[in-house]
Amino acid sequence: MQKEECLKKSIKIGLIGYGTVGKGVAEIFEAKKDILSEKVGAELVLKKICDKTFKKKSEIFTPDPEEVLNDPEIEIFVELIGGIEPAKRFILAALERGMDVVTANKNVISQHFTEILNFAKRKRRRVYFEASVCAGIPIIAAINEGLCANKIKKIAGILNGTTNFILTEMSEKQENFKKALKTAQEFGFAESNPSLDIEGIDTASKLAILSSIIFGSHIKPSDIYIKGITDVDVLDIKYGRELGYELKLLAVMDARDDENGIFLEVSPVFVKKNHPLASVKGEYNAVFLLSDEAGPLMFYGKGAGSHPAASAVVSDIVYVARHRIESSRTHIPFVELKGKGVKIQDIYEMESGFYLRFTTVDRPGVLAQISKILAEYEISISAVLQKEISSHSPVPIIVLTHKAKFGNVLKALEKVDGLSVVKKKTVFYRIAEV
Amino acid sequence: MQKEECLKKSIKIGLIGYGTVGKGVAEIFEAKKDILSEKVGAELVLKKICDKTFKKKSEIFTPDPEEVLNDPEIEIFVELIGGIEPAKRFILAALERGMDVVTANKNVISQHFTEILNFAKRKRRRVYFEASVCAGIPIIAAINEGLCANKIKKIAGILNGTTNFILTEMSEKQENFKKALKTAQEFGFAESNPSLDIEGIDTASKLAILSSIIFGSHIKPSDIYIKGITDVDVLDIKYGRELGYELKLLAVMDARDDENGIFLEVSPVFVKKNHPLASVKGEYNAVFLLSDEAGPLMFYGKGAGSHPAASAVVSDIVYVARHRIESSRTHIPFVELKGKGVKIQDIYEMESGFYLRFTTVDRPGVLAQISKILAEYEISISAVLQKEISSHSPVPIIVLTHKAKFGNVLKALEKVDGLSVVKKKTVFYRIAEV
Repeated sequence: MQKEECLKKSIKIGLIGYGTVGKGVAEIFEAKKDILSEKVGAELVLKKICDKTFKKKSEIFTPDPEEVLNDPEIEIFVELIGGIEPAKRFILAALERGMDVVTANKNVISQHFTEILNFAKRKRRRVYFEASVCAGIPIIAAINEGLCANKIKKIAGILNGTTNFILTEMSEKQENFKKALKTAQEFGFAESNPSLDIEGIDTASKLAILSSIIFGSHIKPSDIYIKGITDVDVLDIKYGRELGYELKLLAVMDARDDENGIFLEVSPVFVKKNHPLASVKGEYNAVFLLSDEAGPLMFYGKGAGSHPAASAVVSDIVYVARHRIESSRTHIPFVELKGKGVKIQDIYEMESGFYLRFTTVDRPGVLAQISKILAEYEISISAVLQKEISSHSPVPIIVLTHKAKFGNVLKALEKVDGLSVVKKKTVFYRIAEV
Repeated sequence: MQKEECLKKSIKIGLIGYGTVGKGVAEIFEAKKDILSEKVGAELVLKKICDKTFKKKSEIFTPDPEEVLNDPEIEIFVELIGGIEPAKRFILAALERGMDVVTANKNVISQHFTEILNFAKRKRRRVYFEASVCAGIPIIAAINEGLCANKIKKIAGILNGTTNFILTEMSEKQENFKKALKTAQEFGFAESNPSLDIEGIDTASKLAILSSIIFGSHIKPSDIYIKGITDVDVLDIKYGRELGYELKLLAVMDARDDENGIFLEVSPVFVKKNHPLASVKGEYNAVFLLSDEAGPLMFYGKGAGSHPAASAVVSDIVYVARHRIESSRTHIPFVELKGKGVKIQDIYEMESGFYLRFTTVDRPGVLAQISKILAEYEISISAVLQKEISSHSPVPIIVLTHKAKFGNVLKALEKVDGLSVVKKKTVFYRIAEV
């Protein structure tokens, strides 16, 4: 490379939000500025950092976001404050002023995908957000670039480290949910208010982003059926393991029957023990993809943390900076917005195997009563596990089903739960077909 | 996107080599031309295909490679004939004529990395070769782009589907090597002459390419310590499993101690059962990476096959075509060649845990004799497994060691094998530290 020629130019970066990820980005720039500049073919300069908890650390820090936005030298605007506002306002303002934008903000991207991307397109600028899904795992680039010849027919992702850590603790140490959550908090894998994680909201934002990219159309978190892990009983994890399954909070996008629409689901689901997703333990994330040309693929790594997230932010910065340096004359958008909507199927139409745990009195004929009702709703049984329990206490009966319609399962369980021999609300989990 | 404006231009592609992968590429173009053209912002046209087994299938086929190379309209040259010559000559000729090159050829890239990339640089053209390593898994793009903020400190890869299929068969069905190889051939996962696969040569080519990219310097297959799987006894797979390990043909690049140089190794290695690499079964491939910022990552998928490989070729074509459409004024090379060599450490200096299987007479004091020799070479024992065997036959004793120098282990085993109580050459495998 003609180094002299290229390195004449420098590209100035402005960063807003100096939290965990922001600090990681600054640290990487501090340590690797030369290597990164060489990759771009121009000097990369972190010119301004806006930190609201302003204690003047050096000349480049400012408490005022406008100082970053109004700097005519800044070409790349990095938004790391999170949340919807003022993040969205800042992103749009940066684009308006001709900057390219890099963000790690899953909330603003999942909620305002079309608005932000269309605005960028109109301004002939780019918005990159690799860090918004699974931090350092380059999953957005893989879908957009490496797999661009493919139609993605299915996603099954472990997209949240907190919940995967909790489920792993429950599975490996036979701990209950509360205890495992506490451990996660002690290790720093769960926040003091963990509800966005444990209720599946965080996972749904990420699934919405991946799906929006795949279909070039805004798929909102509110389009997704969401069930968290707060009600998971360690008993079911134990029984599941005995039957060869691990329970994972899976984000599922299923487009195999896309003429009728796609299915979108975030919920705890049983995964076969020998499936690669089952080996994703602790705080790790993984995205399993079914593509039409390349077949099944999985991307695994840390889905959170200062440097893993900063790794993705910096790679986006390098990517954007390269495009600026290459002085592209035409503008090819990162994500192709097709404009036409995607039909989303009613989740209750989804067909799947199910794990059902009935709690019944210990009396002959109980299973017959239950299976009669299941049969009425076209649910056929593939396996039964009944545990010997000291007499007089209710008995758990585990039933695995063949493929059945989710809606039918719910109706059948409502009827089963009305039987006098059934002592507790029946617990159910879907069994992933991955 | 201003479709009218962009789609005015068309980009012509010439393809040479119409085997499994070539057919896959043509099929993907046939099925997805419009989608791909939209992604590029220009019409992509597969203008000429050179097929030496020429039976005129349509106007675009020719038996003459020069017809592709001499077509002034062709901007992207796709080399899929494999092997060193004439592939290398064609690649250089295409670059000379101003074409960008996409190839799936691991042989020519691993053997002539610097020559080809330097020539491309001089001509200000690009050479892309995603399909040369793990087919449809976008691992080269991940290392080069998504992980560009990272130093890759370690690779542990299952880079060959044939050998992984064989080892999986041996492990899951307790079959011997010959039987498993036959099954692989029946399923089409092994060629009739499988030696390049089973002797680790194919894996070494791919490790050489990944390492060359990481260090921006040519690392040759001949720099790598290679041991294949032809001598693997199903007995050791069985004992390994009992101890919690799976045997995998791993490609290892270890740069954690890079001041003293890197280690390069292709050999069957034991991997802990709960490690994600152990869940890579059958014909699947996976690359486990240790990166300094994003942490551990794994990329999993099909490492061979017509459409998986074609998926990577097409994504390279799209990538190159975009660059041409964007009319980049500067040329940033895909792989940064640093020019300075990488120091490669003697593999015998590598420290690792080992699995050792001694075959001895069944007599008191045997283990004492062996462990005395191990101690002389600073090899300490972490576990012993001795199986009860019907009397009079030699007894297998399995020993797992703490970290020891590979060279010391070899010396110790030579001495042990000289003992009169030892009845067979001792079998050893490294235990991966991933």
